[in-house]
Amino acid sequence: MPTVAASALHIRSLDPFDFLERSAAVYRTKIALIDGDARRTYPELLERVKRLASALQTRGISSGERVAVLSPNVSAALEATYAVPLAGGVLCALNTRLSPGEIDYILDHCGASLLIYDIELEALVGRLQTRLPAIRAGAGGDYEAHLAGADPVALVRREIDEDDTISINYTSGTTGRPKGVMYTYRGVYLNALAEIFHANLRPESVYLWTLPMFHCNGWCFPWAVSAAGATHVCLRKVEATGILAAIENLGVTHFCAAPTVLVSLCNAPGIRPFPRPINVTTAGAPPAPTTIAQIETLGATIDHVYGLTETYGPITECAWQSPQWDGGGEPERARLKSRQGVPMMTLGARDVRVVDTQLRDVAADGQTPGEIVMRGNNVMKGYYRDPEATAAAFAGGYFHSGDVAVQHPDGYIEIVDRAKDVIISGGENISTVHVERVLIEHPAVLECAVVAVPDDRWGEVPKAFVTLKAGAVLTADELRAFARERIAAFKVPKHVEFGDLPKTSTGKVQKAVLREREWGTRTRRVN
Amino acid sequence: MPTVAASALHIRSLDPFDFLERSAAVYRTKIALIDGDARRTYPELLERVKRLASALQTRGISSGERVAVLSPNVSAALEATYAVPLAGGVLCALNTRLSPGEIDYILDHCGASLLIYDIELEALVGRLQTRLPAIRAGAGGDYEAHLAGADPVALVRREIDEDDTISINYTSGTTGRPKGVMYTYRGVYLNALAEIFHANLRPESVYLWTLPMFHCNGWCFPWAVSAAGATHVCLRKVEATGILAAIENLGVTHFCAAPTVLVSLCNAPGIRPFPRPINVTTAGAPPAPTTIAQIETLGATIDHVYGLTETYGPITECAWQSPQWDGGGEPERARLKSRQGVPMMTLGARDVRVVDTQLRDVAADGQTPGEIVMRGNNVMKGYYRDPEATAAAFAGGYFHSGDVAVQHPDGYIEIVDRAKDVIISGGENISTVHVERVLIEHPAVLECAVVAVPDDRWGEVPKAFVTLKAGAVLTADELRAFARERIAAFKVPKHVEFGDLPKTSTGKVQKAVLREREWGTRTRRVN
Repeated sequence: MPTVAASALHIRSLDPFDFLERSAAVYRTKIALIDGDARRTYPELLERVKRLASALQTRGISSGERVAVLSPNVSAALEATYAVPLAGGVLCALNTRLSPGEIDYILDHCGASLLIYDIELEALVGRLQTRLPAIRAGAGGDYEAHLAGADPVALVRREIDEDDTISINYTSGTTGRPKGVMYTYRGVYLNALAEIFHANLRPESVYLWTLPMFHCNGWCFPWAVSAAGATHVCLRKVEATGILAAIENLGVTHFCAAPTVLVSLCNAPGIRPFPRPINVTTAGAPPAPTTIAQIETLGATIDHVYGLTETYGPITECAWQSPQWDGGGEPERARLKSRQGVPMMTLGARDVRVVDTQLRDVAADGQTPGEIVMRGNNVMKGYYRDPEATAAAFAGGYFHSGDVAVQHPDGYIEIVDRAKDVIISGGENISTVHVERVLIEHPAVLECAVVAVPDDRWGEVPKAFVTLKAGAVLTADELRAFARERIAAFKVPKHVEFGDLPKTSTGKVQKAVLREREWGTRTRRVN
Repeated sequence: MPTVAASALHIRSLDPFDFLERSAAVYRTKIALIDGDARRTYPELLERVKRLASALQTRGISSGERVAVLSPNVSAALEATYAVPLAGGVLCALNTRLSPGEIDYILDHCGASLLIYDIELEALVGRLQTRLPAIRAGAGGDYEAHLAGADPVALVRREIDEDDTISINYTSGTTGRPKGVMYTYRGVYLNALAEIFHANLRPESVYLWTLPMFHCNGWCFPWAVSAAGATHVCLRKVEATGILAAIENLGVTHFCAAPTVLVSLCNAPGIRPFPRPINVTTAGAPPAPTTIAQIETLGATIDHVYGLTETYGPITECAWQSPQWDGGGEPERARLKSRQGVPMMTLGARDVRVVDTQLRDVAADGQTPGEIVMRGNNVMKGYYRDPEATAAAFAGGYFHSGDVAVQHPDGYIEIVDRAKDVIISGGENISTVHVERVLIEHPAVLECAVVAVPDDRWGEVPKAFVTLKAGAVLTADELRAFARERIAAFKVPKHVEFGDLPKTSTGKVQKAVLREREWGTRTRRVN
């Protein structure tokens, strides 16, 4: 196991703050950040970060104190991402769509000393039980006054150990209480370098903040974009109109988004081809080939990655194979890209595996399901204040994802389903992802989610929740007939319900919510 | 100072072998290497590396033994770069243009247990005093038999510490005996990631091996190219004909070369524009703006970097500033690019500085000279078996480059001269780099070197050694008249001599050789 000798002149702790400081030294007039009407150069951004860090130290943050951030993707959120660790604190970015009770739980669990929040979320904060010292960003808040009053020169920079915790990211807690995933300086630094390569971020890139920064620290893009010397474009609301306006007017070249965001973008009124090639990194749920094909038709190139909160966001990438994949048309291209792929560049070849319950590799036949497990620098340090959950998650020396996948003969991993989403109907396993992909091929379907519902005869059967495109008409029987032509009869949803789907803030469909509604007090099998 | 906790599941030692192993898992049919008629895929390259490593273990290499390699840029050299550390050994790649006495000195100093050499260098090896077990690569050698007879499964992989020494690279020893510069696994890994970004290596890139792999381990490109999943193109002889043929026929997109190689390329008979854009990384000596302009006119984009053996090759890059630099024509573009620039992406903003003798920053006025000093992960661990020289080199906590530079108001560093090359004439400092840049603007001049020669009146005066272009005619007086119009009289070379220039294997002009010839037994000042 590795050790790095202390006090050696040739070793510098991997610290992602260095990325910002270097870009401020190198790109002295470049726009680092666009937020509404504000344009800030790299030196200006650095200055604001140092002022915020100094203000945080004045408020008692200096060595490991947790600072919670509750904010949409605005300038203050990016500044806090750098300033909290720079002050010596640990960043806890909170999902803005959580309930007051959930936020109270997290604030209590992480033991936050201070809350930085956007004034837009005043009502939510007012409903919290927890009372914390706070800094309020946005019009009418005291954030700018704190910056103006701070002395950046008084800032005390602590020597860091690269294995120190830089941030704690709470899981969405679909199964039980949210858990606090600890990221390290080293992990963030290396993941950022990998993201730069895979997303092909360049100094001239313009990155649009569609992905919430509170989600896995924005997949480490706050650090990756600054390291590349590219431009951050903030986005207060993740809506098709705002995204398309930024693409049209601000030179956007890159963004990240969950597949559902892509679906809404492709189906936005008046959608037209992008004015320049755009690199779109997608993850959060397995994207349907149909979705990939639709967004690429607009002029995007999809980079499909996969990961979890516990893996700093992305840990695999569906690397494109040139020239052998170049010949196919868009449907074939989209099918190939819909797989979760291979370990990212800073991972070892065996750091992501598909295994059976004995941690043995499953056959790479594209058929045999197993669990995806991971290890290495792209995997969390552990769950904060939860050694039992940490030990359980790392059983056997690998982190257990809970995702069921097959490995294809070419080594590419493809997710079959979340372990808890798999439907077991009359002894047959049904991948809900597979059924959804068939349903979404129907031209009237905008999006859908398939979950297990109780059935007296089969134990479980699939039920489809379907959102239709605006103006489209479709009956349950028509959709079932469409599916019957394409998949085995036992996989065809026995029930179909039309309407909106419940989603998390990051656009993931909340199948647990749908299932709860269907199962009520009945007990489902435990995975 | 950093420490990394041992035996943690989320920490994996940074090991550049992982890059190759991952690419072999991801790119199973891609050509990793072209060497003459041979084409090898990534899995084939990995298999050969494992076989060589296993063969090395059979020969007793397992834990820290030094393995010397004496080879042009052929397949065996690349394979040894991976296989020696994989076996547990330390790689010592030797400059093939050294004299037998110099090689004997290095083999003795590093205590090599084994020599891998290319059969083309049989005569040189025959003239060595040192007798070592050897493996001979190339037609008629036993290298392929070793590979065929080895058992890759028997290979024992050692746990590495990322601060272990992966290679020792000997300095050219222009001032005294060569010193053994120790690179670490961590340093190589991080430098490779930085090179990927700065050279913009992509999976579809094709990298031509013009830069010798024995020079700073090829600036870490053996690892960077494999990490990107790009293709290595070997090149036995660094000659314009072979380089141009590879560019024409093999889809080359990238190469690295010292400015003198670029000069010979631009002046090669029948030179014509490249068939595709080529990214050329140059370093080794300050490139004249004229040279940059000439190669860019052919369709290359110059990435000017700067470093030393002690900094894994490049440590700064002349980062392009867009849009403010975009408007100028080629002369202005070349002038901007001829500066050594700013710290590379994995460096901290203050890891490369220009300082006075008290380690204080010199004024960033483009005028005040100081010494370039460096620190951090991109700086060597130390000189092998030479703690005194190591301590001296790191005096004050920074590595001392011996290069004199100014820092411009925009933060960019520009080398004035090597400390020992600076001419002090009648109390005035003369930058030989500056004088050379003026001389090379003359249309008849192919290349030139200016050195200090003794002068009874002024102490030292500049003397120019000049190589003319084929067929060009020029007298010393004409050249001096040309110079007098452009620089101060005291900087104009008092003496001019026409002829070829002595060069190192990496294309650096050996000014020390020229000076020695002029000074003979006379003592010059000591810097």
